[in-house]
Amino acid sequence: MNNVRTPDPDPGWLNEADLYEARRRLPMLYVEAVPVRLDALGYVSEVGLLYTADPDTARLCRSIVSGRVMYRETVRAALLRHLEKDLGTLAMPQLPASPVPMTVAEYFPSPSETGLTDDRQHAVSLVFIVPVVGECEPRQDALEITWMTPEEALSDDVQAEFVGGRGAIIQQALAHVGWGR
Amino acid sequence: MNNVRTPDPDPGWLNEADLYEARRRLPMLYVEAVPVRLDALGYVSEVGLLYTADPDTARLCRSIVSGRVMYRETVRAALLRHLEKDLGTLAMPQLPASPVPMTVAEYFPSPSETGLTDDRQHAVSLVFIVPVVGECEPRQDALEITWMTPEEALSDDVQAEFVGGRGAIIQQALAHVGWGR
Amino acid sequence: MNNVRTPDPDPGWLNEADLYEARRRLPMLYVEAVPVRLDALGYVSEVGLLYTADPDTARLCRSIVSGRVMYRETVRAALLRHLEKDLGTLAMPQLPASPVPMTVAEYFPSPSETGLTDDRQHAVSLVFIVPVVGECEPRQDALEITWMTPEEALSDDVQAEFVGGRGAIIQQALAHVGWGR
Amino acid sequence: MNNVRTPDPDPGWLNEADLYEARRRLPMLYVEAVPVRLDALGYVSEVGLLYTADPDTARLCRSIVSGRVMYRETVRAALLRHLEKDLGTLAMPQLPASPVPMTVAEYFPSPSETGLTDDRQHAVSLVFIVPVVGECEPRQDALEITWMTPEEALSDDVQAEFVGGRGAIIQQALAHVGWGR
Repeated sequence: MNNVRTPDPDPGWLNEADLYEARRRLPMLYVEAVPVRLDALGYVSEVGLLYTADPDTARLCRSIVSGRVMYRETVRAALLRHLEKDLGTLAMPQLPASPVPMTVAEYFPSPSETGLTDDRQHAVSLVFIVPVVGECEPRQDALEITWMTPEEALSDDVQAEFVGGRGAIIQQALAHVGWGR
Repeated sequence: MNNVRTPDPDPGWLNEADLYEARRRLPMLYVEAVPVRLDALGYVSEVGLLYTADPDTARLCRSIVSGRVMYRETVRAALLRHLEKDLGTLAMPQLPASPVPMTVAEYFPSPSETGLTDDRQHAVSLVFIVPVVGECEPRQDALEITWMTPEEALSDDVQAEFVGGRGAIIQQALAHVGWGR
Repeated sequence: MNNVRTPDPDPGWLNEADLYEARRRLPMLYVEAVPVRLDALGYVSEVGLLYTADPDTARLCRSIVSGRVMYRETVRAALLRHLEKDLGTLAMPQLPASPVPMTVAEYFPSPSETGLTDDRQHAVSLVFIVPVVGECEPRQDALEITWMTPEEALSDDVQAEFVGGRGAIIQQALAHVGWGR
Repeated sequence: MNNVRTPDPDPGWLNEADLYEARRRLPMLYVEAVPVRLDALGYVSEVGLLYTADPDTARLCRSIVSGRVMYRETVRAALLRHLEKDLGTLAMPQLPASPVPMTVAEYFPSPSETGLTDDRQHAVSLVFIVPVVGECEPRQDALEITWMTPEEALSDDVQAEFVGGRGAIIQQALAHVGWGR
């Protein structure tokens, strides 16, 4: 942002240094998706979790589809872009008809009021449950995508593999679809 | 319900006379669906409306997918059953992952507190927006199913073709998906 | 329902025998409320649970506000009536502006597809989270109303005191308000 | 952001020049509130609209409570801060128990894909319906706050007084609470 008078081929986007600074001054808007497989009646049969390296610690961890909303990009376009990036172009995600998210997740550099942390930034994320009907392949930097039952996704072992409190998002998503047992 | 000691081959279901009486004593639980076509980003491009005869007046009117929840039937099973009855078996409806309806519609014999009327009964309806990806064919007693744009479905002409205040359900459904123009 | 030609002073209501039969033939419509105390920012600080006798077993158990919707009664009027019955007339509940429930709970005589059971009937319940700002007193047949923190309400000890799978409703309610830890 | 190596007494906040630039590069996160009066059953009896000067044109227009979420501020804290700023400290707003907004409104510099425009920025707004029980006074730069019935708020005259497509937010809010007539 320090060269605003210089001609800028892509003025609506930030370079790495400016993004680094913006992240210390403004909340960043994110979208996140919990990929699910539904049976014929709409019940969630499986949840799709990515297994990847935490950018802060390089430790392997579970994560969901996640990414930033760009300048002049709609929430829906950002959601589709990150679904394709993380699950591949054959995943056939069913984008929601309503713009209302399942929940709003607020990540803060620790210590965090909400229990969700992201040491790079203050991020506010619109979280959607997204049914997926096609074939998924893990993104380049992910080791795998694992489909597991709701019980497995809520197990202590799997919950311990999330970082920054993100396991709670899975709990909320499954509660939202009526899972509470 | 007056023959409960007589052997009953289907004890959880009501005959016509008993159903007539129950409708004067208890709220009846209904499910309703607003069928929609979505574009690749999830925006509603078309709304599907049935054109059928009003059971009370035999007057032709617009309606949405609608029907009763039976004893021991889940809400999802009732929703799928009525979608297949009204749109055919090739409609490929995408049942919602969440059991939370778009709205709860309360129909009363007139005069009605809610503006929604059904002279046969007090019906409480869980209304869902259901994306449909397959081929639809009108049910036997329907003249046609018409796909129209949100603007057309909200036009005065089409709104005037609903009975019992049901046009408001379409307005609420389109508002729910972010349409408010 | 067997005396419909006899003058009936209250034709829209069922006597005990008819209600017993209707419960074996039709889904019954219920409303339920999870009473909560909110802090100034709207975060749930406490959940109100009733301690009462299970009607089926006379065993003491935890429960939430619950009751049937009567013929020609609106969902909101039923919700207010049962809140006053269970929490007293000084509870000052804040009824929701929206008719959309937090979840829809489906209780079946066992075995149940949904994990929620009620051996008297098939009940479909619209569940609301209701902030309460006044003084609560337990209803006549309840031993007490207990306010507890979300952590306490989710503890194994308290969850074990619910019957028919109703502890899941508390889990879903707390997930709905962003509690997932 | 151009002086990041200079000691900064308030590093998480932007000065006017930097905010101007950020608004051309990043989506800004907003909260908005539709203030309502509820009757004892929770039905919306009145909607509160501000009458103020449009910052772009100085033309008088209708608006709702609106403002930016600051760095490290929770959505709830931002909502309460803007409610107090716009309605005064005696308004006694009832903040929602759930973090899920009524809708997500996306404002773009024109031309806008969503029909909502804000020529200063790309803003993504979490919109809440907020019941208000106390006394409201207009903020310093507002001429008045007007309470009107849902019918009045939806009338062509009042809808024409909104700028940037914001009248649609009122339509969506009233549809959300079951108003569709």
